[in-house]
Amino acid sequence: MSMKWLSLLLLLQMTCFFSSGSCGKVLVWPVEYSHWMNMKIILDELVTRGHEVTVLTSSASILIDPNTPSAIKFENFPISLTKDDLENAFKHFVRKWTDLANSFWTFLLSLQSLFEYYSDLTLKICKEVVSNKKLMTKLHESRFDVVLADTVGPCGELLAEILKVPLVYSLRFTPGYSIERKSGKLPYSPAYVPVILSELSDHMTFMERVKNMIYVLYFDFCFQMFNEKKWDQFYSEVLGRPTTLLETMGKAEFWLFRSYWDFEYPCPLLPNVEFIGGLHCKPAKPLPKVLWRHDGKKPDTLGPNTRLYKWIPQNDLLGHPKTKAFITHGGTNGIYEAIYHGVPMVGLPLFAEQPDNINRVKAKGAAVRLDLETMSKTDFLNALKQVINNPSYKQNAMWLSTIQRDQPIKPLDRAIFWIEFVMRHKGAKDLRPAAHDLTWFQYHSLDVIGFLLACVATAVFVVTKCFLFCCRKFAETGKKRKRE
Amino acid sequence: MSMKWLSLLLLLQMTCFFSSGSCGKVLVWPVEYSHWMNMKIILDELVTRGHEVTVLTSSASILIDPNTPSAIKFENFPISLTKDDLENAFKHFVRKWTDLANSFWTFLLSLQSLFEYYSDLTLKICKEVVSNKKLMTKLHESRFDVVLADTVGPCGELLAEILKVPLVYSLRFTPGYSIERKSGKLPYSPAYVPVILSELSDHMTFMERVKNMIYVLYFDFCFQMFNEKKWDQFYSEVLGRPTTLLETMGKAEFWLFRSYWDFEYPCPLLPNVEFIGGLHCKPAKPLPKVLWRHDGKKPDTLGPNTRLYKWIPQNDLLGHPKTKAFITHGGTNGIYEAIYHGVPMVGLPLFAEQPDNINRVKAKGAAVRLDLETMSKTDFLNALKQVINNPSYKQNAMWLSTIQRDQPIKPLDRAIFWIEFVMRHKGAKDLRPAAHDLTWFQYHSLDVIGFLLACVATAVFVVTKCFLFCCRKFAETGKKRKRE
Repeated sequence: MSMKWLSLLLLLQMTCFFSSGSCGKVLVWPVEYSHWMNMKIILDELVTRGHEVTVLTSSASILIDPNTPSAIKFENFPISLTKDDLENAFKHFVRKWTDLANSFWTFLLSLQSLFEYYSDLTLKICKEVVSNKKLMTKLHESRFDVVLADTVGPCGELLAEILKVPLVYSLRFTPGYSIERKSGKLPYSPAYVPVILSELSDHMTFMERVKNMIYVLYFDFCFQMFNEKKWDQFYSEVLGRPTTLLETMGKAEFWLFRSYWDFEYPCPLLPNVEFIGGLHCKPAKPLPKVLWRHDGKKPDTLGPNTRLYKWIPQNDLLGHPKTKAFITHGGTNGIYEAIYHGVPMVGLPLFAEQPDNINRVKAKGAAVRLDLETMSKTDFLNALKQVINNPSYKQNAMWLSTIQRDQPIKPLDRAIFWIEFVMRHKGAKDLRPAAHDLTWFQYHSLDVIGFLLACVATAVFVVTKCFLFCCRKFAETGKKRKRE
Repeated sequence: MSMKWLSLLLLLQMTCFFSSGSCGKVLVWPVEYSHWMNMKIILDELVTRGHEVTVLTSSASILIDPNTPSAIKFENFPISLTKDDLENAFKHFVRKWTDLANSFWTFLLSLQSLFEYYSDLTLKICKEVVSNKKLMTKLHESRFDVVLADTVGPCGELLAEILKVPLVYSLRFTPGYSIERKSGKLPYSPAYVPVILSELSDHMTFMERVKNMIYVLYFDFCFQMFNEKKWDQFYSEVLGRPTTLLETMGKAEFWLFRSYWDFEYPCPLLPNVEFIGGLHCKPAKPLPKVLWRHDGKKPDTLGPNTRLYKWIPQNDLLGHPKTKAFITHGGTNGIYEAIYHGVPMVGLPLFAEQPDNINRVKAKGAAVRLDLETMSKTDFLNALKQVINNPSYKQNAMWLSTIQRDQPIKPLDRAIFWIEFVMRHKGAKDLRPAAHDLTWFQYHSLDVIGFLLACVATAVFVVTKCFLFCCRKFAETGKKRKRE
């Protein structure tokens, strides 16, 4: 191809993805609940910018409703589970996690069996998708430009591999950052980056650092978020070559983390990583005067100044100038809305990273944490009074809001930019660290360290031998002389 | 202060640094030659946006001319050296480095003495500045919002400490990334990040990784870019408390690296680090038809179609559509202009990171490298023919150009944003990793590893002892029974 044509082609491609024409084709492998709510913000924006977005959704989907009026396309596929099966499974997962004993060791040991249950469920759905020939043919024919997935719901990376389409992840975390570290090669220091689920901060005492290290060792060598043996076997069968789940996940071109430095402890990054936390936050719209979300029978004791709603727009409520505090279970989406609007929090974390989330805003002085199991009515009232009446909580929340709003470009725009970048260039190879081409012992320089130690040992051995040999010779000569 | 006032104050501050009013006061501690040329781009932009920029320049300054008509203020201070002294010193430094033997070991050993010479020179100037009471009083009274400095020319961090003003670094590299790693706490992996000055790539063979590790060990334990003992003593004296050069440098709020992923091998980052390479590049202006830069007597053999100029605008020349190749010594500024305009290169590196720079563009397929000492006329001609006639060089250079131009915001805008951010918020504490609060053995978790190993050893010892005790008891019982 001549240079003229090449340049023209490059130019056309650039114009295409920057204009509002429907140029990009995005395939989405979503995860339910709050993950979907966050992902949908990105998808809506992609649609607004003229891209064609197709979401794969099963017949048992819970929140991801293909019948919602939307410019997003939904590709519904049948699975052998019902919506009730899936909902009960998720409820079981959440209930079990919430019930996990607070003890350090019990928690660590219980987590594994819980994730095995979740892994098997996800694998079942993935198998049904991939074996659905009609669906796979349709996806092949659609010629997508990018696959968008979440690390906590595998299968997206397999679809990307089968369809030969670059992959972008949107993620909050995986337990112990294990996937991020093992697949994404994200550098990590156990000395000042608390492993997620540890509930530690970035300023740790000696014993906290020991605890963090034990967590790292546990997540590295004992814990498996997904039952890897089963997944590795399935991925290898489908792709027709020996591979692993983690290797396939590691092919992701870009990693969008749903967090930012107002909330997250500063930690090492890579060029193909962006922290886009709070991308769903926006200025609030006006609200009616008094509000109360309640899903059930209206209590008899309710005063006439309290209105009941089944659901209210949380962002608008948090952005209301009279909102004094936010009582939250500590989900990342809600916390970011409170941060964006500078509202101090009372946290009642339930499961997953919620305790870590609350600890983070607590460490920044913008929240009080309570334990839902053990707190009394007075504890709750005192906590609420504290965040409302002690001005430091409001000041700190306002500071987090300032940091969140003071970025060179908005998180949503950054997310869209890098998804479009991957579409434009069929990947982001220039941002990919060479760490992906190393084995684990090469990555940790174990072979090099071993070789250098062997060299030093050999040198010490040879020098010692020579020295002893010389000493002996010297002694023999001495003896000989004495005899003479 | 009430919340209303606090919010108003925050708002005023925000408006101030975003408007074109002269709100920010920037103090600059510059480094000569190409470092100054790059820094000046940032300063000109800061001035354009309404900030007041003051550059500290000595009576012996070479390129930094306080008499140039500019909106930048120059604060000229006398030193006991003349311009000739300084120029000769720099020439000596460059000549010595250029002459350094190509051998791996000789190079490593010669580098240290070369830097000692440079360090003493810089320390002398720094001492004269700090002891200049009139100047220091004036600087104190100016109440600057930020100090801008370059890591290869110390003293800026001391001034920032004395004046109690946040510090931002602009830097290309320091040998072995030693300052970046030790002061900035930039994470580093010797397995896939070649130490600068090693001339290695990010894809290394086993022996190359051994070489890289030796470099790392050398730069960590044997090499000192600045004669640290002298600097530590001086900084401690001035600040009236025991401190070190590296500790003072580590207080920098933000690090602006003059490189980007089109050119740099992807490596770990931190949130308070931005790669802003190529910030000086811009579309080319038209040029006269034929050009030849020549600083001396006009050669007799020169044809009538060749014009001689003492200096030509390199960026405009590289951006000319008829420019086919760029013959370069491999300075970062020039390479970035070639990358921006997609021009393939023939590299004749001289010293410092120039060989690494040329190797980087060579690794990306956009350059041929020659050795100025050993090359023949034919080698040179062949190299030039190769980059002009083999279309892959142009294609790869165009690809680098595409990556350079396809960023969410331009490098210069990013640099300005973070300098303004530091001014607005009197620092960038939220982006600062907690690694800065750890000792070196805590940072590497050596105490934790030691403790865990001791625990394991104790457990093994106790279990073995118990086992042996039981065995003995069992044996004794057996003997007793036998006797009975």
